Amino acid sequence: MSAAADRLNLTSGHLNAGRKRSSSSVSLKAAEKPFKVTVIGSGNWGTTIAKVVAENCKGYPEVFAPIVQMWVFEEEINGEKLTEIINTRHQNVKYLPGITLPDNLVANPDLIDSVKDVDIIVFNIPHQFLPRICSQLKGHVDSHVRAISCLKGFEVGAKGVQLLSSYITEELGIQCGALSGANIATEVAQEHWSETTVAYHIPKDFRGEGKDVDHKVLKALFHRPYFHVSVIEDVAGISICGALKKRCCLRLWFRPKGLGWGNNASAAIQRVGLGEIIRFGQMFFPESREETYYQESAGVADLITTCAGGRNVKVARLMATSGKDAWECEKELLNGQSAQGLITCKEVHEWLETCGSVEDFPLFEAVYQIVYNNYPMKNLPDMIEELDLHED
Amino acid sequence: MSAAADRLNLTSGHLNAGRKRSSSSVSLKAAEKPFKVTVIGSGNWGTTIAKVVAENCKGYPEVFAPIVQMWVFEEEINGEKLTEIINTRHQNVKYLPGITLPDNLVANPDLIDSVKDVDIIVFNIPHQFLPRICSQLKGHVDSHVRAISCLKGFEVGAKGVQLLSSYITEELGIQCGALSGANIATEVAQEHWSETTVAYHIPKDFRGEGKDVDHKVLKALFHRPYFHVSVIEDVAGISICGALKKRCCLRLWFRPKGLGWGNNASAAIQRVGLGEIIRFGQMFFPESREETYYQESAGVADLITTCAGGRNVKVARLMATSGKDAWECEKELLNGQSAQGLITCKEVHEWLETCGSVEDFPLFEAVYQIVYNNYPMKNLPDMIEELDLHED
Repeated sequence: MSAAADRLNLTSGHLNAGRKRSSSSVSLKAAEKPFKVTVIGSGNWGTTIAKVVAENCKGYPEVFAPIVQMWVFEEEINGEKLTEIINTRHQNVKYLPGITLPDNLVANPDLIDSVKDVDIIVFNIPHQFLPRICSQLKGHVDSHVRAISCLKGFEVGAKGVQLLSSYITEELGIQCGALSGANIATEVAQEHWSETTVAYHIPKDFRGEGKDVDHKVLKALFHRPYFHVSVIEDVAGISICGALKKRCCLRLWFRPKGLGWGNNASAAIQRVGLGEIIRFGQMFFPESREETYYQESAGVADLITTCAGGRNVKVARLMATSGKDAWECEKELLNGQSAQGLITCKEVHEWLETCGSVEDFPLFEAVYQIVYNNYPMKNLPDMIEELDLHED
Repeated sequence: MSAAADRLNLTSGHLNAGRKRSSSSVSLKAAEKPFKVTVIGSGNWGTTIAKVVAENCKGYPEVFAPIVQMWVFEEEINGEKLTEIINTRHQNVKYLPGITLPDNLVANPDLIDSVKDVDIIVFNIPHQFLPRICSQLKGHVDSHVRAISCLKGFEVGAKGVQLLSSYITEELGIQCGALSGANIATEVAQEHWSETTVAYHIPKDFRGEGKDVDHKVLKALFHRPYFHVSVIEDVAGISICGALKKRCCLRLWFRPKGLGWGNNASAAIQRVGLGEIIRFGQMFFPESREETYYQESAGVADLITTCAGGRNVKVARLMATSGKDAWECEKELLNGQSAQGLITCKEVHEWLETCGSVEDFPLFEAVYQIVYNNYPMKNLPDMIEELDLHED
């Protein structure tokens, strides 16, 4: 092997030294009292993240309490409780079959009990369940608890578009960051190499290293040899990407409908989609940073993965081939889980209507019209073309 | 259909009004003397672009001379000359079979004759033939001729890395821009919707609208209903993307080698690749603009398309499954054409070695070592991980 290759091995860690990133867990300080961690949610992605977190809590006993609780919405599977199956056979047979979970991950059907004396809560439930979960938790979570939201989407109301991390902060009075990345859950669960981005803003009441959650603690909590984590400050940026990428999953509609579009068209959709995501961020969350969208796993990489084959793509493909509507396809395909893109699609459309900004987002709007109003796909290229006819 | 959908149709042209883009051909001024256009090159991509250009020259007789010459490296196909086949049967049976070419596209085996009295030359030959072509053209091209290079790659020499458009300008004394985008040639040839980016810097000796080539003329020359063009100034930016994207085509090596990496890993490679492309641009071509990389078809969209299935991916796949080396695979697969990524890979490696900058580009370097020195793929995630161990 050449000298260059040897040097590569030695120096690869120096990449991106100019960018603000958390350090590895190597320089991690022991916690005065190890942090107790709970994961709320046990779907496909929830169970996967709980596995990651439990592996790290076991691996860093000086930083984390070894037992990780996972709140599970109780279900009966062939007469047996799902929590009992998880706690005895260490497998979530319904939502993550075939994956062995660490034995320090304890399923708990009691939401309030699962967060008793907790220091860090990881939220990983479908977006639409968040309001109910928060209202149940209210009054049972201390204000110095810290949280990370793995949810995708926005809360859209009369006040406008709100990040789900901000919603959690508002409802529970706790600091909340976000985790988002190019993460098809099954691949992470099978320990196939993936990357992600964690964003967390250190709050004003930070109690100091070893006493409170900082970027190093979060890196230690989520980073695995197969799941590479970068920790940044820009919570808004990664949340916007996570919520809006699904708009770009259109492409798999095209081919079955006989438009004959190929890889070039797919890339074009993703490019225009990335542009609209950045514009949305600049318009409604000016604190988000443009670099986040094209430098982080939560940005461009997540967009690529989602368009290559996430839940929304599956739903779209079935819609195209079966002629059924989106809601039926979702029910049929996703085993009770939700293709949240459909909900976000409508919510964002309504918000842009309220703001009079629909025309700034022709791709987003086209997706809405296709899903909800049978808008013809073949006009899409003309709709998103940048003619600038009126400039001279 | 809703009011929003109607508005979408009316207003879709206003997208990106804040960005500097060329206007559509609608406001195009007639040329005092219609521009005569020649395409140099008749491979897969060369013939495709010649088809596009010839269609537009026929469509805008007030701007372009109707006959478009295409210089063809003469070959015999079953005893018949390729130029004769093209000129009588209007098909490039060797490099673009099955596609009917416009009858105003005239194949010419004589390079010097093909550029006689020409106003615009479109270069679309394999990178490695450029020096010979330029030395033959020298003295036969007037200084007010304008050119667009569709070539991918750099010219790497003792002086460093030079854009191919700059090489053409230096060798022939003519202003030269570039065309690059998410363009798998066959899809464009089949008129499946695609986008591209043309970059051209208006020279100091610009002779005025209607007399010289400007952004509107270039839009009219390349834009088709199936091939959407944006025209920008940043020649360096789009050229760097075009040359370096191939480094990211690694991913198809992974699965056959049993590493079990999936879509998440593929997206991670593309993310890191985009970051290194931007870094390369900032380091060696500070005039290039960061936005070009993530806003333009020539940037992120081209990267996605290339990684989804271009020539380099085909070569990589055959390498992985057959155990043959890159050069053999190229010969076997590409019908005499070149997977230019292999050449660029080595050239850029040597240039980075000269500059002592190898360690700033761990993914580029890893690709080089894999192709040329059988470097083991499985170490890649660790090699490109951003640990920043030494920051605190």
